Amino acid sequence: MPSEIPSICALDALRTHRRGAATAEPPDAAALHEVFQNSTINALLEGLYDGSMTFGELRRHGDFGLGTFNALDGEMIALDGEFYQIKADGVVYPVTDHQRTPFATVVFFRPSLGRALDERLSYDELQSRMEGLMEGPNLFYAVRVDGRFAAVTTRSVPRQEKPYPPLAEVAATQAVFELENVDGTLAGFRFPDFARGLNVPGFHLHFLTADRRAGGHVLDLKLERGALAIDATAQFHLELPTDPAFLHADLGHDQSEALDRAERAR
Amino acid sequence: MPSEIPSICALDALRTHRRGAATAEPPDAAALHEVFQNSTINALLEGLYDGSMTFGELRRHGDFGLGTFNALDGEMIALDGEFYQIKADGVVYPVTDHQRTPFATVVFFRPSLGRALDERLSYDELQSRMEGLMEGPNLFYAVRVDGRFAAVTTRSVPRQEKPYPPLAEVAATQAVFELENVDGTLAGFRFPDFARGLNVPGFHLHFLTADRRAGGHVLDLKLERGALAIDATAQFHLELPTDPAFLHADLGHDQSEALDRAERAR
Repeated sequence: MPSEIPSICALDALRTHRRGAATAEPPDAAALHEVFQNSTINALLEGLYDGSMTFGELRRHGDFGLGTFNALDGEMIALDGEFYQIKADGVVYPVTDHQRTPFATVVFFRPSLGRALDERLSYDELQSRMEGLMEGPNLFYAVRVDGRFAAVTTRSVPRQEKPYPPLAEVAATQAVFELENVDGTLAGFRFPDFARGLNVPGFHLHFLTADRRAGGHVLDLKLERGALAIDATAQFHLELPTDPAFLHADLGHDQSEALDRAERAR
Repeated sequence: MPSEIPSICALDALRTHRRGAATAEPPDAAALHEVFQNSTINALLEGLYDGSMTFGELRRHGDFGLGTFNALDGEMIALDGEFYQIKADGVVYPVTDHQRTPFATVVFFRPSLGRALDERLSYDELQSRMEGLMEGPNLFYAVRVDGRFAAVTTRSVPRQEKPYPPLAEVAATQAVFELENVDGTLAGFRFPDFARGLNVPGFHLHFLTADRRAGGHVLDLKLERGALAIDATAQFHLELPTDPAFLHADLGHDQSEALDRAERAR
């Protein structure tokens, strides 16, 4: 965990980073406690899969979160500062600082609330339980559940070639994994409805097994028991790509239906 | 202008500020070069007019921008670090650090592009001209026009009492000012369509006369000649209120029509 009072060096690192130079120093993002996001979900839905940020840079903004990879090459989950790539072959790979992401959301996870979950819960029930513990629907929430799952249905998406098809088309070719009786961790976010267009409204969760050998974007689950942690913040930082494909994309129209097909269809 | 390389003290000030303590030091926001926003336009449309941030804090995030005041008491415009309050009586007042705002958008204005505007332009023509100079519709743009105006139609909104009515209702009672043959400054932003729900998509401009005696939220204008400056950034920071009214408000529904009535109707 970064200390609460970052050193002058850490602040220097932030400054250096923001001005574009490479540095290995930790960032000040932990002090900000903001949800940090690279690009927008609308851009991803439109097929903008070129990675605009390195994971070396992304990890300066958070130690927890989810996203995807350059060319849409799988699902990303970050836990405790470790970043994992779950490819469509179902294998979990470590992520190097040189890999790039077209869309990711991270935070330095500092939960303000924890609860033991002692009963079996469906995905809907788990979402309701989490919402019942939140301070209303209008903040940014990072959520983590470590537990035992009777079942988790995950998916991953295969690496794409240009010209990139829209995400809803790719999702039709996704690899689906039915994991049963596994220990593991759910990690993700609940975004407010008014942030539609920027990120997935409502819950968006990824999963990784405790043995770090399987996981993906969560489509469904049955929790047996677990420990829930919720991190609420009122701070959100968005960093947009500046490549021509993003700058001139048509991102303004309502993509709710495409989002549903891309993120929730089995 | 803040220097490009902030001092260690300035960075310390950011840290102190972010951790909640009061400080008179300048912030690091200039180094970040991010558009900073307090609350959301949807919250304002719903009638959430309680100021959630002081202007003392807001000015640490920018020297240029627009917004409104606690209880919706007029229109705010910020130029060169000076903040002005244009009340519904048409008078321009200085803003103190202790006043509060329920919604504001600011940036440390550092234009990357300037153009002389030598011909008469309607409001629509000016918007088209500005869009033609921008790198596509998907970044955050701050825009400033200093010039001579054949006409500027502005409005301001009167201070409200609780229970607060929605903004579209208040706009029906707005004071409209027809300013003719005036020197002055337009200041505001162009937000991407995908940020709908957070801020006004497209252009949102406020106006202040050169003699600092009139202005308001711009409804229409005729430019004679002027100087345009555009500041593009890919960085956006949102800070949400955390009072119960905001936390539990219904902010997710489409408010495009209410927005049009509140921001563009005469």
